[in-house]
Amino acid sequence: MSKTLERRAKFREELILAAERNMAAGGLAGLKTRELAREIGVANGAVYNLVEDVDELILRVGSRTLGRLDVALSTAESIGPASPRETLVRIAIAYCDFAAENLELWRALFEHRMAPGKPVPEWAIREQMDLFRHIYRPLAELFPERTPVELGVTARSLFSATHGMVLLGLEQKLIAVPVVELRKEIAIIVGAMIDGLTAKAA
Amino acid sequence: MSKTLERRAKFREELILAAERNMAAGGLAGLKTRELAREIGVANGAVYNLVEDVDELILRVGSRTLGRLDVALSTAESIGPASPRETLVRIAIAYCDFAAENLELWRALFEHRMAPGKPVPEWAIREQMDLFRHIYRPLAELFPERTPVELGVTARSLFSATHGMVLLGLEQKLIAVPVVELRKEIAIIVGAMIDGLTAKAA
Repeated sequence: MSKTLERRAKFREELILAAERNMAAGGLAGLKTRELAREIGVANGAVYNLVEDVDELILRVGSRTLGRLDVALSTAESIGPASPRETLVRIAIAYCDFAAENLELWRALFEHRMAPGKPVPEWAIREQMDLFRHIYRPLAELFPERTPVELGVTARSLFSATHGMVLLGLEQKLIAVPVVELRKEIAIIVGAMIDGLTAKAA
Repeated sequence: MSKTLERRAKFREELILAAERNMAAGGLAGLKTRELAREIGVANGAVYNLVEDVDELILRVGSRTLGRLDVALSTAESIGPASPRETLVRIAIAYCDFAAENLELWRALFEHRMAPGKPVPEWAIREQMDLFRHIYRPLAELFPERTPVELGVTARSLFSATHGMVLLGLEQKLIAVPVVELRKEIAIIVGAMIDGLTAKAA
């Protein structure tokens, strides 16, 4: 790598880390490229030599968040009884814990919208879809007769239902629940869903 | 009512309806009080003689949305087999349909945040909580041994899980699903949850 490219890579890394710190503190609304430029010591316009636009910057931060979520889910998968039902419950609880501990960065994953007319880039979609493997694997064990497409649909539903419980449970608005209660309730409901689906399939 | 109060009530009603039209078209971001004032033919500042602030205006629109949701859920409750399991599945599907048909107004219910430090008024909380009776009633039939508090927790979980499936399913982003597919999947998952909970309780 030439000296110039090296410098650019270093500033780009610093920019993404500064954006992450800002978003962790103030969410998407807290992100001001002008402030980031000052923080890493480059001119305002220079930010756009480092990333294409704010969307790319937010997606790069999201990529780091997804990476840490991936580690958290992998850990939950491997620690504890190997039964697919228990594994799915552990993964759901780990998702809840991750959201509670990374509230603003986790919210940003779902609240971010690309500029009108701009599609989400392929690499970002792939990273998000890749995380479904944590749910897909135990489901495939539970329902060996289902096709990959059917398993994909069930994985999506299970994820969406868990996401809804975490989202509204951590919401400081209508039905805020202490995380310890929320974890218990997620275990009950996710367990019940799997039991119900298993009974149906049997 | 004096002539002045009558006029105020009429303008207030017009203001809320204009806000509802704007939000139905462009969501919360589409709401500009300046435009609303022009639409109903009052001076900019006069809007704040009609409602306390933008928060109240949005909550009044929300109140109308909740009123229509209440009607939709009541209809779903009464049309079809009376079994509590089937009733809960119908309510979940009706919730999905309502969200799909009132996308922006429904999203606004969840995206709206009060100005910092201002609590949601009691009347608005009561209206929201009141809707839980649609879920609570069939659950109380299914689980007669549970306390009101326990039933409240289960009602909240069931709602949050359904909300998550509707939210991410209707999302135009990662995992958009045709509504007809989404309805089917919600029926399967909500049914499975109830079956799982019932088996546990038996």
